[in-house]
Amino acid sequence: MTKPLTLNPDRLFPAEPQTRAVARKLYDQIKDLPILSPHGHVPPVWIADDIPFPDPTNLLLTPDHYVNRIMHGQGVSLSDLGVPMGRTDFTPEQARNAWKIFCKHWHLYRGTPMKFWMEAELVDIFDVTVRPSEETADAIYDQIFEKLASEEFKPRALMEKFDIAFIATTDDPSDSLEHHQKIAADPSFTRIVAPTLRPDKYLEAARPDWNASMDALAAASGVDTDTFDGWVAAFENRRAFFKANGGTSTDHSHADLDTQPLDKADADRIYAKARSGQGVTKEEADALRKTFMFEQMRMASEDGLVMTLHPAVVRNHNTETFERYGADVGGDIPMGIEVVKALQPGLNAFGLKPNFTVILMTMDETVISREVAPLAGFYPSFWAGPPWWFIDAPDSIKRWRKAMTEYGTLYKTCGFIDDTRAFMSIPARHDVARRCDVSHLAELVMEGRLELDEAEEAAIDLTSTLPRKAFKIPSA
Amino acid sequence: MTKPLTLNPDRLFPAEPQTRAVARKLYDQIKDLPILSPHGHVPPVWIADDIPFPDPTNLLLTPDHYVNRIMHGQGVSLSDLGVPMGRTDFTPEQARNAWKIFCKHWHLYRGTPMKFWMEAELVDIFDVTVRPSEETADAIYDQIFEKLASEEFKPRALMEKFDIAFIATTDDPSDSLEHHQKIAADPSFTRIVAPTLRPDKYLEAARPDWNASMDALAAASGVDTDTFDGWVAAFENRRAFFKANGGTSTDHSHADLDTQPLDKADADRIYAKARSGQGVTKEEADALRKTFMFEQMRMASEDGLVMTLHPAVVRNHNTETFERYGADVGGDIPMGIEVVKALQPGLNAFGLKPNFTVILMTMDETVISREVAPLAGFYPSFWAGPPWWFIDAPDSIKRWRKAMTEYGTLYKTCGFIDDTRAFMSIPARHDVARRCDVSHLAELVMEGRLELDEAEEAAIDLTSTLPRKAFKIPSA
Amino acid sequence: MTKPLTLNPDRLFPAEPQTRAVARKLYDQIKDLPILSPHGHVPPVWIADDIPFPDPTNLLLTPDHYVNRIMHGQGVSLSDLGVPMGRTDFTPEQARNAWKIFCKHWHLYRGTPMKFWMEAELVDIFDVTVRPSEETADAIYDQIFEKLASEEFKPRALMEKFDIAFIATTDDPSDSLEHHQKIAADPSFTRIVAPTLRPDKYLEAARPDWNASMDALAAASGVDTDTFDGWVAAFENRRAFFKANGGTSTDHSHADLDTQPLDKADADRIYAKARSGQGVTKEEADALRKTFMFEQMRMASEDGLVMTLHPAVVRNHNTETFERYGADVGGDIPMGIEVVKALQPGLNAFGLKPNFTVILMTMDETVISREVAPLAGFYPSFWAGPPWWFIDAPDSIKRWRKAMTEYGTLYKTCGFIDDTRAFMSIPARHDVARRCDVSHLAELVMEGRLELDEAEEAAIDLTSTLPRKAFKIPSA
Repeated sequence: MTKPLTLNPDRLFPAEPQTRAVARKLYDQIKDLPILSPHGHVPPVWIADDIPFPDPTNLLLTPDHYVNRIMHGQGVSLSDLGVPMGRTDFTPEQARNAWKIFCKHWHLYRGTPMKFWMEAELVDIFDVTVRPSEETADAIYDQIFEKLASEEFKPRALMEKFDIAFIATTDDPSDSLEHHQKIAADPSFTRIVAPTLRPDKYLEAARPDWNASMDALAAASGVDTDTFDGWVAAFENRRAFFKANGGTSTDHSHADLDTQPLDKADADRIYAKARSGQGVTKEEADALRKTFMFEQMRMASEDGLVMTLHPAVVRNHNTETFERYGADVGGDIPMGIEVVKALQPGLNAFGLKPNFTVILMTMDETVISREVAPLAGFYPSFWAGPPWWFIDAPDSIKRWRKAMTEYGTLYKTCGFIDDTRAFMSIPARHDVARRCDVSHLAELVMEGRLELDEAEEAAIDLTSTLPRKAFKIPSA
Repeated sequence: MTKPLTLNPDRLFPAEPQTRAVARKLYDQIKDLPILSPHGHVPPVWIADDIPFPDPTNLLLTPDHYVNRIMHGQGVSLSDLGVPMGRTDFTPEQARNAWKIFCKHWHLYRGTPMKFWMEAELVDIFDVTVRPSEETADAIYDQIFEKLASEEFKPRALMEKFDIAFIATTDDPSDSLEHHQKIAADPSFTRIVAPTLRPDKYLEAARPDWNASMDALAAASGVDTDTFDGWVAAFENRRAFFKANGGTSTDHSHADLDTQPLDKADADRIYAKARSGQGVTKEEADALRKTFMFEQMRMASEDGLVMTLHPAVVRNHNTETFERYGADVGGDIPMGIEVVKALQPGLNAFGLKPNFTVILMTMDETVISREVAPLAGFYPSFWAGPPWWFIDAPDSIKRWRKAMTEYGTLYKTCGFIDDTRAFMSIPARHDVARRCDVSHLAELVMEGRLELDEAEEAAIDLTSTLPRKAFKIPSA
Repeated sequence: MTKPLTLNPDRLFPAEPQTRAVARKLYDQIKDLPILSPHGHVPPVWIADDIPFPDPTNLLLTPDHYVNRIMHGQGVSLSDLGVPMGRTDFTPEQARNAWKIFCKHWHLYRGTPMKFWMEAELVDIFDVTVRPSEETADAIYDQIFEKLASEEFKPRALMEKFDIAFIATTDDPSDSLEHHQKIAADPSFTRIVAPTLRPDKYLEAARPDWNASMDALAAASGVDTDTFDGWVAAFENRRAFFKANGGTSTDHSHADLDTQPLDKADADRIYAKARSGQGVTKEEADALRKTFMFEQMRMASEDGLVMTLHPAVVRNHNTETFERYGADVGGDIPMGIEVVKALQPGLNAFGLKPNFTVILMTMDETVISREVAPLAGFYPSFWAGPPWWFIDAPDSIKRWRKAMTEYGTLYKTCGFIDDTRAFMSIPARHDVARRCDVSHLAELVMEGRLELDEAEEAAIDLTSTLPRKAFKIPSA
């Protein structure tokens, strides 16, 4: 039996009627504010070349490991969903079948953010009116497919429609940033697309591709990378290049947060050993990586690029899956993290510098009230990012908000991060965050912890003022 | 002053009236579904021989360390409560006095699951109408005592009355399973009582009784256990025997979850050293235990017996108490646990095998959103058990449900586990879980995250479909 | 625009109307009970000499790192707020300006306990009727300033007004306790001001001032401290002295909770090495400190002084700030802690002793349900203190209450701890705890987990009976 698909206008608001009324009032003030997306993974070429989106499966399923992971966990083969992205052997029939598999498993998404996003996309963007199911799969597929062919569904038109004022991409330090330059050179397109320098693999000297990365870095920067000092100079070059092309932040994810630098002589020695191709031990590579991180912090305190950190994940947990499908297919599992001692060397050196900003995203909820909020409370440079990644979901957001607010760090939170390459879900994801934020504020009002006018101002600050301040987002 | 004792029909439902109404509606659909109890500690001989229950103290207090621990924490001597269970020197007068001590301390149970269970048992099973207190203790004792003498309060009759369709016991690998065989051989009793293989002590080569266990294992299996290969073959034999006698799962609890196997030569060498009676170091025993666990996973991936894991507890924390009263008297204290790296060797080897199922129960709440849900999300073989043991209580259940649902793993949860030998409390414990589940679903409905018809279906799935699937429970 | 400042009489109560009504009813029963403050940092000389409070800044801002930390985290210099406390170069103009800075940053406190306390102080104590802002700063400053000059705002009068029946201070083991003696000697002042022995630095043999502390201890006790046995005897002496002067507890905060003692010979040897001025390694000092802790537990089990533990904080995280402003200016950051194994040696030895009490305060929320509640459930001597320090805030308190209650340890919680030297905030802080407690109980009532009469009794127990029992507070 076909069921209707509609969106509840009060979704995610607290059930208690008076609290809900306050939330609704606050929401009305912020729901139409422009989207600021200071951290995400949309390929800049999509916008530079205004490339039309392909079929529903390649748009909504294959690239989104949030979505296809759930089916994999119930035994669906990733191959049947088009993974890995960009496969040339994935036929239109297979794409349509993948959509049908998804619709058949729609019940698995009950209560999840993925359901919330998908429903919002289907209803608000594609005018779908029926609930996904095996029976409705084809009709929904056809309806989306048809819309994607039109001009108004191309990336630039959607950026206007979604009112995305600022979006940051994720880019290799050696990237030419040609797509960003193309976008910036077009005076008719006023939305800001900023690059983000993501240097992780350049800091991991035990990786088999590290020397190749060093060669690429040397080529991109024109700086010899045969010494530790060369590495530093090359990064100073690339950071300046990113900044000149509109970059406002860099992004970092390693196994831990440690920032303890080596003595210069040891750093030089281990670097030379790694660069010579002799190979370094895991211990040497870790020690060098922590020194590199310390250097990145030092540079950030000088050039003012904001550092975002989201550490502590076991990447590609299952070897068989990684070998068959590659990275980023749902096999990354968070682990526990220590923050306070790990960051102490870097914060001791740079934490009070006026030009320095570091934003910590956590996948480990346990450090929020214990370590993140206290650090954000004390250090002017330290901001708290949202609960990262797998847990960017309503209840997690509310738990995070509660912990940060009552510690006194409401104004040290940096707004929402969508962290996605699922372009169509960006408005829905930001909407989740806005609905959660006003729900949190409404509860504070109802509990006599905040006056209504204070909540109204705070709602705007959380959505607009604070992301601009934390990420140094330029005004349009 | 004697106070009445009644049960609030809306207990554990959310206070907000609309949400409560939804919860009630969902509850009505599942409250009478048969009980599935795939993990517990009821001695099978009770059912095999249909042994009448003794007095209220020996039924409800002495064997339940949840209950007597609370009094011990306030200075009551365990001796006065009949601990350890089975003491022959505990007189009827002492039993009656223990019940009076309990009733006098009734206020200590305020807000606890133990109060909830006890009230449900007193009212629903024993028709008690007055609140426990020093004044009412004798009358309640007499009332229960009288009922216990009747036929309808014998185990088999109660299993019918409680509608327990399936119950698993916990059994030593060398057990003859005679009681299970006796139950199965009686065509007039159609309730399923399944054995569960619990091999912990056979994996701990540093235990003083390990060689005796190996001898028993050899005797039970008819397989020589003098070599590592013999250990494996003997376990293959016992697992097959348990499966043939209706077993669907095995149960495991060690200090950590590590599954890193030794090289075969090292395993052989350490095993031989242990078996020779020379003794092994703690490090050797741990390494061997991890290898044994890897082997158990390998066997499970072949024979399909579900593995349940509930690691990380400091057993018998207080030596004086252990020496005086033995194990399982409330002195086991949970500790932190690492999941992701510990299970990686086993999941890498067997995590994608179609016949493999592993269910992780946690006593450490911190890993639920961070590690358990992500693993359950990715691996088809990995299911999440309920928040284990000391924390199988309403707020814990709701926190666990929230974390699992919003991660997308509602359908990777395996239903409720009562984990008890307190037979009378089984219906009340399952009722707690059902009430918490519908409360969770009702909140999702009210927050526009789930349609009512989706919640209705999910309520049934959580209570019936998923436990059957996860634990491979046969249909009646 | 000037906004009015009023207090919502239902603040912190649940929004749901029926639950709120129950909370209000429970609150009415306890709101006027005398304040018991068994752990705090008010200097006893204030009360002994009844010293008038100075200006608003020196009363409400400078000494309260909860308050000034939030501004520091947004870039305000601690110097501009009068830090460190007691600076002689801080002029009246600067004090007034600091107040203006605070009022200008009032929005930073939205949703925080600091806002809650400050509002209660401004309205209830100082009759302020306008919201703090840059515009209202001067008027509020003048109004408070004027009141502070009057007799009724001196410490002893305020203790009467606030109805503080018992307050404990924090004192060096070598202290003469002259202020306590002066207070006790005045028959016209009947409020109890008890000393608390805080020996931390005497247990840390690697501290540069350790030998000086040992000399002071010898001088105060009249016991030679050149040997480990001397250390023990000297502490037995000082503990008895504190007890004779009304002390009921000792207070301890170290990097971890470990209580594993050294062999006597090793303890003697390392002690002698440290006392000789040769210096000890960090490992030696840690081992000795654990032995000292074990000894403190042994003494506590004999003399009955209650031990409070609040471990695991990285003190003075930022070196530059510490060197400029000293300790206790907001740069202490909590870290994770292990409880179960660390306390096992001490609890094994003394945990069942009838005269022994240990109260654990946690800054690490993750151990509450996992380790603290189970230990409190089992050991008669083990009590759970409130969620310590940075997280003594409404949501944290409610999370803590939920975890402790459903584990069965409601009656092993010791009431509220204000832990403050911000004298004016004491009533507001206790009011937060009382409002949170009744909210928690009201929710239990509404969920059918507690009868109303049980909740009424429990509310009084949490506020009065349990703190008196846990901290051995004498009746007036």
